[in-house]
Amino acid sequence: MLVVMDAHATEEQVRAVCARVEQLGLKAHAIPGSSRTAIGITGNRGAVDLGTLESMPGVVECIPVSKPYKLVSREVKEEPTVVRIRTPLGDAVIGGKCAALVAGPCAIESREQAFAIARHVRDAGGKLMRGGAYKPRTSPYSFQGLGQPGLEVLRAVREEFGLGIVSEAVDTETLDLVEECADMIQIGARNMQNFSLLKRAGRAKKPVLLKRGMAATLDEFLMAAEYVMAEGNYNVVLCERGVRTFSDFTRNTLDLAVIPAVQARSHLPILVDPSHGTGRRNKVLPLSRAAIAVGADGLLVEVHHDPATALSDGTQAILPEELRQLWTEARLIAEVLGRSMN
Amino acid sequence: MLVVMDAHATEEQVRAVCARVEQLGLKAHAIPGSSRTAIGITGNRGAVDLGTLESMPGVVECIPVSKPYKLVSREVKEEPTVVRIRTPLGDAVIGGKCAALVAGPCAIESREQAFAIARHVRDAGGKLMRGGAYKPRTSPYSFQGLGQPGLEVLRAVREEFGLGIVSEAVDTETLDLVEECADMIQIGARNMQNFSLLKRAGRAKKPVLLKRGMAATLDEFLMAAEYVMAEGNYNVVLCERGVRTFSDFTRNTLDLAVIPAVQARSHLPILVDPSHGTGRRNKVLPLSRAAIAVGADGLLVEVHHDPATALSDGTQAILPEELRQLWTEARLIAEVLGRSMN
Amino acid sequence: MLVVMDAHATEEQVRAVCARVEQLGLKAHAIPGSSRTAIGITGNRGAVDLGTLESMPGVVECIPVSKPYKLVSREVKEEPTVVRIRTPLGDAVIGGKCAALVAGPCAIESREQAFAIARHVRDAGGKLMRGGAYKPRTSPYSFQGLGQPGLEVLRAVREEFGLGIVSEAVDTETLDLVEECADMIQIGARNMQNFSLLKRAGRAKKPVLLKRGMAATLDEFLMAAEYVMAEGNYNVVLCERGVRTFSDFTRNTLDLAVIPAVQARSHLPILVDPSHGTGRRNKVLPLSRAAIAVGADGLLVEVHHDPATALSDGTQAILPEELRQLWTEARLIAEVLGRSMN
Amino acid sequence: MLVVMDAHATEEQVRAVCARVEQLGLKAHAIPGSSRTAIGITGNRGAVDLGTLESMPGVVECIPVSKPYKLVSREVKEEPTVVRIRTPLGDAVIGGKCAALVAGPCAIESREQAFAIARHVRDAGGKLMRGGAYKPRTSPYSFQGLGQPGLEVLRAVREEFGLGIVSEAVDTETLDLVEECADMIQIGARNMQNFSLLKRAGRAKKPVLLKRGMAATLDEFLMAAEYVMAEGNYNVVLCERGVRTFSDFTRNTLDLAVIPAVQARSHLPILVDPSHGTGRRNKVLPLSRAAIAVGADGLLVEVHHDPATALSDGTQAILPEELRQLWTEARLIAEVLGRSMN
Repeated sequence: MLVVMDAHATEEQVRAVCARVEQLGLKAHAIPGSSRTAIGITGNRGAVDLGTLESMPGVVECIPVSKPYKLVSREVKEEPTVVRIRTPLGDAVIGGKCAALVAGPCAIESREQAFAIARHVRDAGGKLMRGGAYKPRTSPYSFQGLGQPGLEVLRAVREEFGLGIVSEAVDTETLDLVEECADMIQIGARNMQNFSLLKRAGRAKKPVLLKRGMAATLDEFLMAAEYVMAEGNYNVVLCERGVRTFSDFTRNTLDLAVIPAVQARSHLPILVDPSHGTGRRNKVLPLSRAAIAVGADGLLVEVHHDPATALSDGTQAILPEELRQLWTEARLIAEVLGRSMN
Repeated sequence: MLVVMDAHATEEQVRAVCARVEQLGLKAHAIPGSSRTAIGITGNRGAVDLGTLESMPGVVECIPVSKPYKLVSREVKEEPTVVRIRTPLGDAVIGGKCAALVAGPCAIESREQAFAIARHVRDAGGKLMRGGAYKPRTSPYSFQGLGQPGLEVLRAVREEFGLGIVSEAVDTETLDLVEECADMIQIGARNMQNFSLLKRAGRAKKPVLLKRGMAATLDEFLMAAEYVMAEGNYNVVLCERGVRTFSDFTRNTLDLAVIPAVQARSHLPILVDPSHGTGRRNKVLPLSRAAIAVGADGLLVEVHHDPATALSDGTQAILPEELRQLWTEARLIAEVLGRSMN
Repeated sequence: MLVVMDAHATEEQVRAVCARVEQLGLKAHAIPGSSRTAIGITGNRGAVDLGTLESMPGVVECIPVSKPYKLVSREVKEEPTVVRIRTPLGDAVIGGKCAALVAGPCAIESREQAFAIARHVRDAGGKLMRGGAYKPRTSPYSFQGLGQPGLEVLRAVREEFGLGIVSEAVDTETLDLVEECADMIQIGARNMQNFSLLKRAGRAKKPVLLKRGMAATLDEFLMAAEYVMAEGNYNVVLCERGVRTFSDFTRNTLDLAVIPAVQARSHLPILVDPSHGTGRRNKVLPLSRAAIAVGADGLLVEVHHDPATALSDGTQAILPEELRQLWTEARLIAEVLGRSMN
Repeated sequence: MLVVMDAHATEEQVRAVCARVEQLGLKAHAIPGSSRTAIGITGNRGAVDLGTLESMPGVVECIPVSKPYKLVSREVKEEPTVVRIRTPLGDAVIGGKCAALVAGPCAIESREQAFAIARHVRDAGGKLMRGGAYKPRTSPYSFQGLGQPGLEVLRAVREEFGLGIVSEAVDTETLDLVEECADMIQIGARNMQNFSLLKRAGRAKKPVLLKRGMAATLDEFLMAAEYVMAEGNYNVVLCERGVRTFSDFTRNTLDLAVIPAVQARSHLPILVDPSHGTGRRNKVLPLSRAAIAVGADGLLVEVHHDPATALSDGTQAILPEELRQLWTEARLIAEVLGRSMN
């Protein structure tokens, strides 16, 4: 259910409604909008006495929400959510008029590798670097990431280059560590329905980047974000990274129509990962252009200065000079849509 | 097999090689390039005596082609094919530096409807109008198109508005009629592997627009074009229109990565149909922008001045004012790629 | 719409209703059931005056049919349709309590090959032999079947071994020839929505075997059968042959749940083709057992005495000794379901 | 790599090879076969000195394994693995000549519900009952299972009815609890690539039931089992439960061809879950028959005495009388394959 407050409702009135909701054994989520505040109520399996809420001061109306998702929904919050990632060089902004570029290696392999790539990311104009210390791999015998030493390298990259850090957590234990080190916590496609991990991410103090699962429907994708938000973390950025189909010339099939579909249903920003989405270096630039043109709020791109020696996913990493070209093209196309890249 | 001629080979030398090939019971396809001519040889199931060809005047080398496709392949012809559609207002150009917009109703319903829409297409800047007189429909009880009277309407549109006509043939009988009336013959997705129809299209004198089947792999798509070319019609334009996947918020999943994939393997131009590709009006503009940004050679778009009353596919047709916006945005994005729209 | 006749209605009364329907510009399909006749009405796009029909002698009621399919539907005809294929050795029966085995090579390659395999089919206990004279092939350069000489071989097989012949038509021209030679006309998966071909098959005098398209939904599959029946040919047998999915260890993914799904909606019998459905010889026997166990009305199986030299699809053809084992196992499993194999 | 021991090698010799392998920083997995022991070596990213192993007493040869999976592979262990689940009524056996029936509710809802269903399972002849105390649900607002009280109910079912208990763990915390209470630990489809959970399951003392992910390829499925085995738990049973495709008349598409495909590559037993695989009650019996006919090592079936009131997945649960019919039919079909149900 959704409680819509009056445009002139005081903060005190909002707090009073929330308190009453909690008294009823439910959870209240006050979501400030540009003109008014809405209060989403979750946890209601039975009958909450609506009357008592509608008669409270400052309440305009109570709307029963029939859609399976609530907090992620545009019904709850009409304006697009803008997520700010703190970096030493100032905030990176994802959403609204701003599209962001997140670039970096698939996995952190060494201090040298990370620094070499970080330099290229910063020089290309990026504020955010991606890089995994923990890698979910199909085989138990593949390189699984450096682990904690990898996080130390990322901390050093942050200090040395001023870049904000985006890194993946693969379970609740590593989420504790990533939360401490990184500026944004990534939940990978294989964990999109790892609900224990989503709940833990919902209690984190850092923004969450949630990737779509390989076979996730749009509803399942948004409900996964709902798990995070239901625990109180509203800084969620979605990411399309390709779905699994019969089509065999790319690693996955990038489903770009999901961008306008998400934007019609949800206020959350959404990025596109053309590196995993295609799995082929020569398709990353064309699909990056397409992603910005379709209206995505940014790109998550793998870049490597020496892809041939990469310990994972070398075939899909672009080269530093391609990153510069991507940045230029993306900026020009974003302008056509009245947006800017950062 | 592929015979590469010397850059200075005379036309006579090319003809002599072709004649020898035909003597051997095979089919020769002379494909002129910007600097040299290549001769594709098809029909070879056994052993052609290569030696006799390599020793002929003007021949540089004979390359056995291992790929399943030959005439569609970049190995045979490196430069992109540019297809010109004759229209009363001058040629519409698809390929190379030129991307084209083909717009119009799903089906021709009446002279009034067709003229109303044609006016919008011309005013928006388009040179080519699509419109079906024969409609393949899932149900035998659905509107199947006006048939021959529909073709007469299209002929009138051509005369009145100067637009080139693109219309679908659904079998060999209707192909005869469409070939006579239209400037470009469309083969629909359901007929992509109707090999008898493809062969007939290969003997047509008009360019062919070949749509990808709903579950066609890239190889099957290119091989379908090969069927047309093997009969001698080299003016083939491909068209991505979405594939069938589990993803359920759009009618089909538009597979935009197929554009760079086709361009890497083939010299043929390729359009994108965002109307069938998404099945939702509100997704046509975003995906049209994405299609041009990814590098497609144009768009095939359904437009209707009164979609609510359309006899087929009204939910995916855009409005005339959306067509004008699409045209503006597409042109700006094409410029970023150094291309122009026509 | 559906007109249900009284159990005691005379043939004359049925004819009178049909005549009235035709007068109204519609098409009447009298479908005799075990206890009563139903008359399906197709072609009704506007308003037929129901009253005039309900008041006719022998009419019980007029039911508006909302489902997209009519003639294929269980609403029109409750008892399962039993299709009888005439063979020199007596009728082969598909449907009801009878499941049938149709076996033979993918393509007819020569009289020797066809006779060798026919002997194995007959000795294993089969009454029906499959074998293609016209083969739809992905590549224009692959073996496309022997054509008319292949049909002559099939005619000779029929005479020599007494087997009924099932053979594919790929366009309206070849359908004429196949209809003359074969006892059952196969429409392949790629042509499931070749509506001109379906209509022609609907005017044929022989039963039709209609294979499911690679990406066909259940509704599309049944509507394709509706195209055939709407032209007057009610002897349609469906065939599941695998759909296209991401799953890559088989050529297609055999969707056996379609069998009970078809049986819930339609009275038409349905076979399973485990040869194309898996594309792997070692999976044909297990999936054949599964098909009979799930309740299919028979099997369409490729068999070859020398698969290594087969001109097409050799990797999925089983050996003669495997055919005998298949027959034994299928019969035992059919018994568990109270059915018999023929 | 794989070390094959002599048929007469002593246990001491096997231990000595394992010790040497561990000295080299690798992991040794001694896998006793019917005639000889093989030792799988995992963790080898660089160069192990093979020579030192081949010269050890009792070693026949060292085989480099190129396949991505090792411990799950038939190359390592040729005979099928037989997993025994301890129950108060004696062992339930999965694999080899024995196929097993695991039946029960989707979720444990109350002591009354669980006991009512347990009685039906036992009376039908089953030894194993499934029932979830922890349910991974798409929505955070759906019933998530009773949690620990649900496990207590299962413990009581075990005592009262003598049934072995199969129950799902959704994270490492709940795995501790499930391991204590249940006789077999289920890992659900959404967690098939939750590698932290797989590793924890690999250290459990109870057998593991691993369900295939909705979009998992065969290799990914087997590699997930490899994660469990690489930690030392060799009692792994796989389970096909349907994959996600375009086909929309069932909840998932049951991919029965995966059964012979797994059996060709791996020694692990594999069950089929026709309840999730179809999502429709009226398809559970036909697909159960098909699963046994294709050669599966058993069934995982949802049953409910009052599906209309079930808190989750009521539409796919069969009724107690259907369970009895399923048991009868499955036993008869298993006999055709020379197997018995338990």
